[in-house]
Amino acid sequence: MNDPQANRIDPVGAPRRAEGRDQIFNGRLIDESLLRAGIDLSQCGLEELWGAINLLERELGVEFLRMDFGVPGLRPSIIALTAQAAALTNSVIPSQYPPPDGIPQLKGAASQFLNKFLAVEAPPECILPTCGATQGAFIAQAVAATRRENMNEILFLEPGYPPMKAQARLLGIKSIGIDLYDRRGDQLIDAIESIVREKGSIGAISWSNPNNPTWNVLTEEELRGIARICIGWDIVAIEDAAYFGMGTWTEADRPSKTVAQFTDNYFLLLSASKMLSYAGERIGLLATSQQMMRRRYDGLEPTFGTKEVGAALKRAIFNLTAGAPHSAQYAVAALLEAINAGEYDLERSLATYSQMAKQIKRVLIDNGFYLIYESAERSTSGDGFYLTFGYPGFDAMRLLKELLYYGVTALPLQLFGSSRSDGLRGCVALIDQQNLRVLAERITRFRRDH
Amino acid sequence: MNDPQANRIDPVGAPRRAEGRDQIFNGRLIDESLLRAGIDLSQCGLEELWGAINLLERELGVEFLRMDFGVPGLRPSIIALTAQAAALTNSVIPSQYPPPDGIPQLKGAASQFLNKFLAVEAPPECILPTCGATQGAFIAQAVAATRRENMNEILFLEPGYPPMKAQARLLGIKSIGIDLYDRRGDQLIDAIESIVREKGSIGAISWSNPNNPTWNVLTEEELRGIARICIGWDIVAIEDAAYFGMGTWTEADRPSKTVAQFTDNYFLLLSASKMLSYAGERIGLLATSQQMMRRRYDGLEPTFGTKEVGAALKRAIFNLTAGAPHSAQYAVAALLEAINAGEYDLERSLATYSQMAKQIKRVLIDNGFYLIYESAERSTSGDGFYLTFGYPGFDAMRLLKELLYYGVTALPLQLFGSSRSDGLRGCVALIDQQNLRVLAERITRFRRDH
Repeated sequence: MNDPQANRIDPVGAPRRAEGRDQIFNGRLIDESLLRAGIDLSQCGLEELWGAINLLERELGVEFLRMDFGVPGLRPSIIALTAQAAALTNSVIPSQYPPPDGIPQLKGAASQFLNKFLAVEAPPECILPTCGATQGAFIAQAVAATRRENMNEILFLEPGYPPMKAQARLLGIKSIGIDLYDRRGDQLIDAIESIVREKGSIGAISWSNPNNPTWNVLTEEELRGIARICIGWDIVAIEDAAYFGMGTWTEADRPSKTVAQFTDNYFLLLSASKMLSYAGERIGLLATSQQMMRRRYDGLEPTFGTKEVGAALKRAIFNLTAGAPHSAQYAVAALLEAINAGEYDLERSLATYSQMAKQIKRVLIDNGFYLIYESAERSTSGDGFYLTFGYPGFDAMRLLKELLYYGVTALPLQLFGSSRSDGLRGCVALIDQQNLRVLAERITRFRRDH
Repeated sequence: MNDPQANRIDPVGAPRRAEGRDQIFNGRLIDESLLRAGIDLSQCGLEELWGAINLLERELGVEFLRMDFGVPGLRPSIIALTAQAAALTNSVIPSQYPPPDGIPQLKGAASQFLNKFLAVEAPPECILPTCGATQGAFIAQAVAATRRENMNEILFLEPGYPPMKAQARLLGIKSIGIDLYDRRGDQLIDAIESIVREKGSIGAISWSNPNNPTWNVLTEEELRGIARICIGWDIVAIEDAAYFGMGTWTEADRPSKTVAQFTDNYFLLLSASKMLSYAGERIGLLATSQQMMRRRYDGLEPTFGTKEVGAALKRAIFNLTAGAPHSAQYAVAALLEAINAGEYDLERSLATYSQMAKQIKRVLIDNGFYLIYESAERSTSGDGFYLTFGYPGFDAMRLLKELLYYGVTALPLQLFGSSRSDGLRGCVALIDQQNLRVLAERITRFRRDH
């Protein structure tokens, strides 16, 4: 069960073995299909791109090597499945609303997990299960940017996951972005500080660590710098750790660093979707400090009917979804307990992703592609779930389209708010050893033709 | 499985049999407990009241007859449980994100269900599973009140469920209320129309049918009137039918009437929580018409990145929770299919509630209480999940507190935005035949002492 290769699943439920030589990807047919459906790829958002690729697979009877999806490629642990099935047979769990602040087992297991793997002290009452980290992000933004009337803007470290910025729009929260590509270290901290000072209205700084899509991690130095700014200006750091454990970095940059080690002003998001391959069941976690839970702000009162941060967070969950799915909370609790007890090796279970990333990068580089967001002198990018790449002389949209003709899919970095117009994000999860060979053939043919 | 009495569950998981004579409810101890915890009941919202009562049970070792909770009192059907357990054993379902617009089985079964039981024509693509009807309400409001820049206000038919109004506040949507207590029939329609005309900014009219907390239903005449106004002013009717099937009314007022029969301008909300006793797993449904799905509004673009109502609804679900829990969608689909096929008798499964409501009303009336929101000449209140009552000379807060001393709990109607300051809402779900006798004893003692 803990053998990564044995864990691999077929993500579409039916045998899915792209047959390299047998599949004809006909550019003309692809173009015609898109035209018929009225789809202009350059106008597509995330979901529309997924939809367009699904459509092509259906209409043309082909199977792309799908690096566009960011979905788990591993089977969930039997520990989680058994615990959820057991919870269902207890008629109280499926029939009764979950506690809006989560079941004690999950709060306790997550508290231990954070302590053990991220050196974060968040007691069980400071951990709130949500309907995926997606809901965690929404609630985090809603509360962080409402605390003070004049601090209702969010600074995003870009690139990042588009729905988070869509959430801010839905909440009427203004946002501003700063790209991680050309500013790191002291330069990044200086840039953040000057925006914070200039604006005076930044209520939260938000980023993902490891970063989706770049797979960079912030260094300890950077996290300390951000923490210092958050403390100085009473800003909340919203750190999305949905990809915790899903890659390897150099020891110095291991993502076991989090801003939560350096300030109480944090909302830390975890997710069962990626790390535990449990995306279907919609369980995420929002963790914060005891100090933050108890802090009171007048700005929260009109929206949440309470001044206290902790009460506002819980009420937001209650008002939005009346809690997170009940039986699935038991699944995640049981698996975290097993990980905490050393009975399930999380790192080993996820090793497939970094091994595969290394091999795919090799294929790309051998065929003239280059990697983005990985600096030569000091990479904080590591190997894992996502990789970013370009091809000389191609912009992202042309590369996306040309790769379609060779049966390979990925997403333009611009969709994530990146300043890089030349790159794509690929997810390694749906590539296994067998179709890695197919990928190599397709990429080699692409190179031969270009 | 379809015998209502056999279905009853113990909602707290442990034997819970309030022993009438053995339980001493000591007013002084209750007051001291609340004081020690710093709780002022008159300042409590929904959740705080539940929390306060939980606290008293824990601290004093007593068990109230809990009519304050609105939670299912029945076991979920084995059909649902089996389908969800089977979905879990298919590793693709728990590990992969649900389609943001829901699994086809659920969309199809819900479409049939709506057609069969509510005479509504909503094809499968117009039915979107949500994380409970709570999320459905949030998305409905977000889209309905964003369509046109100058129509961003919601008219609530009061009283109603407080979280819906909290959702509007979170979205920055203004709202206005009109009480159903003293205006019904033509008077109601005239009042709605005059507000709509006066304001010019109403983008949605929102109510629950059957109504929480009053257990009233709107008549066909009223629904037709609202539909006419919605068509005339391009307003969306948001009808929350979360309690569909959970009570009995006179034939003329059966809640098989819905505004969706009279206009395309509707978002109809259904829930698995109450009707299918599946509150734990967080599955609701938002249904709308094909016409509404395809309609386009400029106002949607800035927030949702699309002008189309259907696309905006789906994107809202994707951006807020990345879909509704995957395995639970199979549970609800299977049960709706069984209901559609006549293999599961929904009405019979829920008959307990109306039977119990009749008996509790009898106990109350026999002891000097009076019912609220039930007019003598023509009741549209019926018997079911909720009932509303008062006691001569008591305002709601005093009645709530005095009933606590006799071991009975309910919620003040004012929490729901009611204009009635004298009434409480009680939910019948946690009262069974055995503790109905205890209730009668406690209410009789209350009467004797007052």
